[in-house]
Amino acid sequence: MPRYKLTIEYNGAGFYGWQIQATGKTVQGQIEIALSKFTKQKPRVNGSGRTDSGVHALGQVAHLDLDKSWPVQKLREALNFHLKPDLISILNVELVDEQFDARFSAIRRHYIYKIVNRRSPLAIGAGLAWHVRQPLNVTAMAEAAKYLEGLHDFTTFRSVHCQAKSPIKTVDCLVVSACAEQIEVTVSARSFMHNQVRSFVGSLKNVGEGRWPAKQMQIALKAQDRHQCGEVAPAHGLYFANIEY
Amino acid sequence: MPRYKLTIEYNGAGFYGWQIQATGKTVQGQIEIALSKFTKQKPRVNGSGRTDSGVHALGQVAHLDLDKSWPVQKLREALNFHLKPDLISILNVELVDEQFDARFSAIRRHYIYKIVNRRSPLAIGAGLAWHVRQPLNVTAMAEAAKYLEGLHDFTTFRSVHCQAKSPIKTVDCLVVSACAEQIEVTVSARSFMHNQVRSFVGSLKNVGEGRWPAKQMQIALKAQDRHQCGEVAPAHGLYFANIEY
Repeated sequence: MPRYKLTIEYNGAGFYGWQIQATGKTVQGQIEIALSKFTKQKPRVNGSGRTDSGVHALGQVAHLDLDKSWPVQKLREALNFHLKPDLISILNVELVDEQFDARFSAIRRHYIYKIVNRRSPLAIGAGLAWHVRQPLNVTAMAEAAKYLEGLHDFTTFRSVHCQAKSPIKTVDCLVVSACAEQIEVTVSARSFMHNQVRSFVGSLKNVGEGRWPAKQMQIALKAQDRHQCGEVAPAHGLYFANIEY
Repeated sequence: MPRYKLTIEYNGAGFYGWQIQATGKTVQGQIEIALSKFTKQKPRVNGSGRTDSGVHALGQVAHLDLDKSWPVQKLREALNFHLKPDLISILNVELVDEQFDARFSAIRRHYIYKIVNRRSPLAIGAGLAWHVRQPLNVTAMAEAAKYLEGLHDFTTFRSVHCQAKSPIKTVDCLVVSACAEQIEVTVSARSFMHNQVRSFVGSLKNVGEGRWPAKQMQIALKAQDRHQCGEVAPAHGLYFANIEY
């Protein structure tokens, strides 16, 4: 059975997240339905990781096995045709070794969190970034971000519903950058825990607003206490950017 | 009567263009309704120029006169409050001299046209750029664009419905640039005719696809014949970017 790797862009607004649920439209579910329309199969589409309801993806990756071989361009075109009008786009299809696993073969995952920092509401970028009205001190945010890099117990920054076995993870890099009113937080790690990036960003916002000194990020981290976390930033600013294998 | 200058961002998708129509929601109309909700007036909002149905703005400018003085921040906040949930955002309000006229004081207008050039459909940027599937030769497009700069009779590139007195205009600059799959066409001039930018871009696409040699742009221009124009590019890729005074 040939195995295919899909690279997928989606607008999270219309979906109850990546993973199939008992009810509600999901990205994984819609791709599986699209596949069933032009193959005689109902193959499972295995993502590299879940994304929550409302979270976007620029380059989610999934693998699937098909009974017969498909030219990769044809498979991509057929999928995109049958996915319409959902805002899910198959950017690329590759034939991969049967050892390839979208989840377990991943060596690094990259997320981007987008903030627009201005008084006025968003017209063009509505739903595509977190609108923060209070002026943010990006230098202070960047300083605070450094405390979160490296190997730590991230209990403070994971959802109480997180199913990861251990809260100890390595964050390879966490960078805060700004261009005029656009602020981007980029985070890279082998793996992430539930709500980890949104918990980081909500806490960084506290620093940016001056409600936390930068050093408070280290105190919150060391506390290993979920109650020390800032607010969880909203889903619609978060993008699952890409995955390295 | 104090005069105010508004700088306005809007997502064109929800509107029948800038200018008030007999029926249908327009940007000008919605701003006038918002004003009437918190002033005791129904002031006219005078834009720097019309935008067609579906065209976006990053920095449209308008002026209006009010009976009484308003702190500019308060006026902006009140307008934005009453404009919700429409995707119209008042970015800035300034008190200006009564000689200021959003339309006639303008010395230069800037448009940006956004193209995404890839096979797969747009999920994140749907409705915010023109999706062109055929690979475009950006170098050839940039070469062709040069023929349109300067003082010319632009009869070929204006709508038959254009009401401008003369088709002779100066295009100050027309630049085609690309970053990966994102292509931007930026155009600057004192004033534009109806469908001029979209006619430029549709014709540039012919060049990018190799259906026209770059030199054909000059032939089309010199023909002064609307039938020599390429297709009119769709409204949803066009942004009225900003206006100089």
